[in-house]
Amino acid sequence: MTKPLFLHPDRLFPADPTIRAIARTLYAEVKDLPIISPHGHTDPRWFAENENFANPTDLLIVPDHYVFRMLYSQGVGLEELGIASKDGTQVETNPRKIWRRLAEHYHLFRGTPSRMWLDWVFVEMFGLDVRLEPATADLYYDTIDAALATPAFKPRALFESNNIELLATTESPLDPLIHHRAIRESGWGGRVVTAYRPDPVVDPEHDGFAANLIRFGEMAGEDISTWEGYLNAHRNRRAFFRAAGATSTDHGHPSAATADLSHTDAEALYAKVLAGRASAAEAELFRAQMLTEMARMSIDDGMVLQIHPGVLRNHNPSLMARFGRDKGADIPTPTDYVRALKPLLDAHGSDPRLSIILFTLDETSYSRELAPLAGHYPSLRIGPPWWFNDSPEGMRRFREQVTETAGFYNTVGFNDDTRAFLSIPARHDVARRMDCVWLAQLVAEHRLEEDEAHEVARALAYDLVKAAYKL
Amino acid sequence: MTKPLFLHPDRLFPADPTIRAIARTLYAEVKDLPIISPHGHTDPRWFAENENFANPTDLLIVPDHYVFRMLYSQGVGLEELGIASKDGTQVETNPRKIWRRLAEHYHLFRGTPSRMWLDWVFVEMFGLDVRLEPATADLYYDTIDAALATPAFKPRALFESNNIELLATTESPLDPLIHHRAIRESGWGGRVVTAYRPDPVVDPEHDGFAANLIRFGEMAGEDISTWEGYLNAHRNRRAFFRAAGATSTDHGHPSAATADLSHTDAEALYAKVLAGRASAAEAELFRAQMLTEMARMSIDDGMVLQIHPGVLRNHNPSLMARFGRDKGADIPTPTDYVRALKPLLDAHGSDPRLSIILFTLDETSYSRELAPLAGHYPSLRIGPPWWFNDSPEGMRRFREQVTETAGFYNTVGFNDDTRAFLSIPARHDVARRMDCVWLAQLVAEHRLEEDEAHEVARALAYDLVKAAYKL
Amino acid sequence: MTKPLFLHPDRLFPADPTIRAIARTLYAEVKDLPIISPHGHTDPRWFAENENFANPTDLLIVPDHYVFRMLYSQGVGLEELGIASKDGTQVETNPRKIWRRLAEHYHLFRGTPSRMWLDWVFVEMFGLDVRLEPATADLYYDTIDAALATPAFKPRALFESNNIELLATTESPLDPLIHHRAIRESGWGGRVVTAYRPDPVVDPEHDGFAANLIRFGEMAGEDISTWEGYLNAHRNRRAFFRAAGATSTDHGHPSAATADLSHTDAEALYAKVLAGRASAAEAELFRAQMLTEMARMSIDDGMVLQIHPGVLRNHNPSLMARFGRDKGADIPTPTDYVRALKPLLDAHGSDPRLSIILFTLDETSYSRELAPLAGHYPSLRIGPPWWFNDSPEGMRRFREQVTETAGFYNTVGFNDDTRAFLSIPARHDVARRMDCVWLAQLVAEHRLEEDEAHEVARALAYDLVKAAYKL
Repeated sequence: MTKPLFLHPDRLFPADPTIRAIARTLYAEVKDLPIISPHGHTDPRWFAENENFANPTDLLIVPDHYVFRMLYSQGVGLEELGIASKDGTQVETNPRKIWRRLAEHYHLFRGTPSRMWLDWVFVEMFGLDVRLEPATADLYYDTIDAALATPAFKPRALFESNNIELLATTESPLDPLIHHRAIRESGWGGRVVTAYRPDPVVDPEHDGFAANLIRFGEMAGEDISTWEGYLNAHRNRRAFFRAAGATSTDHGHPSAATADLSHTDAEALYAKVLAGRASAAEAELFRAQMLTEMARMSIDDGMVLQIHPGVLRNHNPSLMARFGRDKGADIPTPTDYVRALKPLLDAHGSDPRLSIILFTLDETSYSRELAPLAGHYPSLRIGPPWWFNDSPEGMRRFREQVTETAGFYNTVGFNDDTRAFLSIPARHDVARRMDCVWLAQLVAEHRLEEDEAHEVARALAYDLVKAAYKL
Repeated sequence: MTKPLFLHPDRLFPADPTIRAIARTLYAEVKDLPIISPHGHTDPRWFAENENFANPTDLLIVPDHYVFRMLYSQGVGLEELGIASKDGTQVETNPRKIWRRLAEHYHLFRGTPSRMWLDWVFVEMFGLDVRLEPATADLYYDTIDAALATPAFKPRALFESNNIELLATTESPLDPLIHHRAIRESGWGGRVVTAYRPDPVVDPEHDGFAANLIRFGEMAGEDISTWEGYLNAHRNRRAFFRAAGATSTDHGHPSAATADLSHTDAEALYAKVLAGRASAAEAELFRAQMLTEMARMSIDDGMVLQIHPGVLRNHNPSLMARFGRDKGADIPTPTDYVRALKPLLDAHGSDPRLSIILFTLDETSYSRELAPLAGHYPSLRIGPPWWFNDSPEGMRRFREQVTETAGFYNTVGFNDDTRAFLSIPARHDVARRMDCVWLAQLVAEHRLEEDEAHEVARALAYDLVKAAYKL
Repeated sequence: MTKPLFLHPDRLFPADPTIRAIARTLYAEVKDLPIISPHGHTDPRWFAENENFANPTDLLIVPDHYVFRMLYSQGVGLEELGIASKDGTQVETNPRKIWRRLAEHYHLFRGTPSRMWLDWVFVEMFGLDVRLEPATADLYYDTIDAALATPAFKPRALFESNNIELLATTESPLDPLIHHRAIRESGWGGRVVTAYRPDPVVDPEHDGFAANLIRFGEMAGEDISTWEGYLNAHRNRRAFFRAAGATSTDHGHPSAATADLSHTDAEALYAKVLAGRASAAEAELFRAQMLTEMARMSIDDGMVLQIHPGVLRNHNPSLMARFGRDKGADIPTPTDYVRALKPLLDAHGSDPRLSIILFTLDETSYSRELAPLAGHYPSLRIGPPWWFNDSPEGMRRFREQVTETAGFYNTVGFNDDTRAFLSIPARHDVARRMDCVWLAQLVAEHRLEEDEAHEVARALAYDLVKAAYKL
């Protein structure tokens, strides 16, 4: 006997009737605001080519590291999930079989955001009304597969039906941005912009760094054999990205370290990096220096600088060897901000033209470092709960630990940060609900007036993100 | 005028009537499940010899570091509490006088788990119905003392009346396990198993390490003068422990550091350790290497590997000199997992035959490291809140910070980890209640369906512990 | 149209009617208890001279780093707020214009304690009943300005009308304490005592340290050219401070490091420090050694030792250059206690004559280090949530993370730690409410009996602070 599946209209609202009633009122006014997705990892090709998605498995399992990491943790090999191998391992190619595997293990997701996002997609997008379990796996597969073939499920149609006002993707400086150009030239009205993510040409430890630099110089038409030429190549590519709508840059470094070397020292360091002779410490110093250089360029060109630090990438080397990067084996590390950011902030922290958005996976920094820093420096804002903390409890902790020192106006609304396109509205819905819950609690405890809460709810859902990302 | 004492049936349940009602329903189905105590420190002699306990003080105060550390923190000397001294300090020998001291200071325990556990024991085991205070100290003493002399309070009777299905003790490899043999041979049906805790022969900084090694070789019948012989001695003693029912090993290292040295380097390090010439850093490296060796043996023999890291033991040297180890002066330290475990995980982290249960006293690792690690590696599970966090708020934080990334099924149910035998049911009851509270909140907020919550509640109380510990 | 402003009698109490009802009952019994302010930074001159305060801006904005740091973080320059510059920058001198700036940006404080404290002052002290916003800025300014000129708003009158029983200020050993003497000799009955804060003569990195030492020797009549003479100068000044009512010392070090050097080593270190040749590490070691010396003196003279560690002061060097210290640019850092305090505790941790109160801005230490340490050492107590954590959520986290291991009786009641005199009652009111909320939750969840909660509520509001500070 199958179990019914439906989305309760009060989901995520506290049981307390007073708070719930206030939360409902607040949420009613923000739930239909357009979605601004200022940072994420969807594929611009989807919107350029507007092809239908292939099948349920390729859309909902294979690209979603939240999903396959949980299955992997309970003994399901990535080869059983159709993840392409690098070492010739045979992988499952039957998407229906893979879908059944998800159904068999769907109980693992109880209490997780993945479960909430997937159920939202199942109900809201595909009209499913029974729970995913082995008995309903085929019904799910067939229903979703059939829907995906229809015009309503083409990327542009979904963009529009999901009330997305703007979507930012993230590209390397080496990306020619042909899809973004195609989108602009297509005449379609959807706003899909890019963001400048220069890790492949900034991180000396990045795969293929040396070759990347050569290509970088070629694309920019700059001589990257000198420090000045290298910086100019960034200026050039940033301008190219801005022309494709970019208003932000993004930096995924192992730490939040910054540096502010003399021109001579920076030049010498770059020479070592260029020659492939940089030690691990020098690679870290180069990344650190480049954050400060990026800040200087931001002062000039107005791009908002995002820092996403503190992840030990590819923690599992055998998995990395067999399946490559981004396979759910990235693990957060303790992350310092107060000393790490000092060189950059010493140089430019009070410059009104600079805007830096800080993210963290180390929640201990919320009350100890990020809120005190953002509550002082005019250039700093705190990004929303990220990755493992993009969750109801993560959002609750964020507001509880950040608000009292930094207020609401040093935060920047929500980022979905996802490559799972269908889940974007689900994620924004969770964020809007959880923000309304926090505001409702403040109102119920007479810590904020209701009219103010309405204003803040709207700011968190829409206004702050536009302001922070200059959209 | 004495104050009434009773255990409210809704204790620990939130005031909110919706959540409380759901919690009651969930709890009703798990409260009478048998107790599995897969890790703890009770004395197997109790069950082998089945003698009555001596008196209230020797049973409830003298062995309980939670109790005497709090009294000590407020100026009550351990000598006033009958703790045996090592330096000839005269200690109080009148158990009634000591009991009165507890009664005088019982208000110190307000809001602590110790108060909750003790009150449970007073009411449920001894039928007391007035609060412990100076005026009732003698009534308490006499009531408990009289009960302890009866057959119903013999260890085996308590084991049975407390609905314990299995109890694991923890022994050194040097322990001949005679009590466990006596229990098996007695014909009594209670399952009391051991666990392999090799710190005394793995930690070069352990008291008496050199002598321990010699004895270790003798007991195992192996030549511990070589690295291979030393490892074989472990294999031998592990087999001996498995024959006494052990399904797990346990490791109480200062950190979670692991290493994976070459055979040559490991051999050389062992030679230094054996010769008593290892520096502090080499001692740490040896412990680190041994965790990886233990993991390899676990892959072979199937024993589950528990790591309890991150405590600075015997922080108070004058107390250590006067009263010895385990006197409430152990203090947690910041504990890294993400880098510490990498050598072991690089070698064996994805091996489906390996099962490691990680504990922490550094709650910052829950959302940052432990949940991401356990939510990826098939070999990792997260142990329940431990020691100072074995408490209602500690359990709440555990579920709030772990569930969204690791789910429920990468956790392993509850450990009481206690030497306070009478409090075992009280501790399991707290854990069951707090898990039901968390589930009830998820249900009330429409984040989990009620039928699923019932399944999870049972898993957390009973099924997961049996699976995780292979019981 | 202006918005009404009023203080809800149930503010900060949870929405849940059961908990709220209990919280109300508990609060009713503590709300009118006299205020003991055992640690803070008000100016003793106010009470010595008893002059009226100048104007709303000089009283409520210019000295309040919570207020101007938030405005600064959103682009309002300190020069626009009348903060005196050190570099000749022209600053706004019209207090009414500055007040209007606060009104324009008052929404930034939504959800912050500053908003709560200021609103309390506006309503309770000045009878304002409309919200502060641009339209009401002049009404506010005029109302407050007029009131400040009246006898009821003189410092001593406010001290009395605010039900302050005792107020401690904080002075350098170089302070002649003339205001405290004037207060004593004035015949006024208000108790205003000092506290000994020797950072200027203990921290080799303090501004003007060399000159401070010379003056220190002169004031104490001791030869500070020797280590013994320097220590005697402390003894002398401590005695002088005790005669002015001081019962405590206070230490604002970058870390909680302590040391216990041999006499020879300490002497040699002091010689280096005196000669201005101490490295940064030696300066840290000297501060560490001095905490232990201060502890020894406390054992002799009974003064309570407060440690406020873990802040990176003056993080923003350009702001420091332009406006000086204490301008909202102090940022907390990760803070170790377990290893840092060991040298001091090894020497004196179990001495019943020693009393140390530990503060933190690193909340991760609550459950991991501070509660375990204070729940063991008789000399240690945990101070209340401090600075950025002096807030409703900060207080909630404090009790949730500290109580289960340290209980209530290893904490010391509330400190307002403020230089914002008018907000003292507001801050104590927040603390009393939040403690009652925590106790009410324990009662509602049957974790504490109501009669005990009443006793604890009174202890937290009044009894514990008098005992801990020996007042």
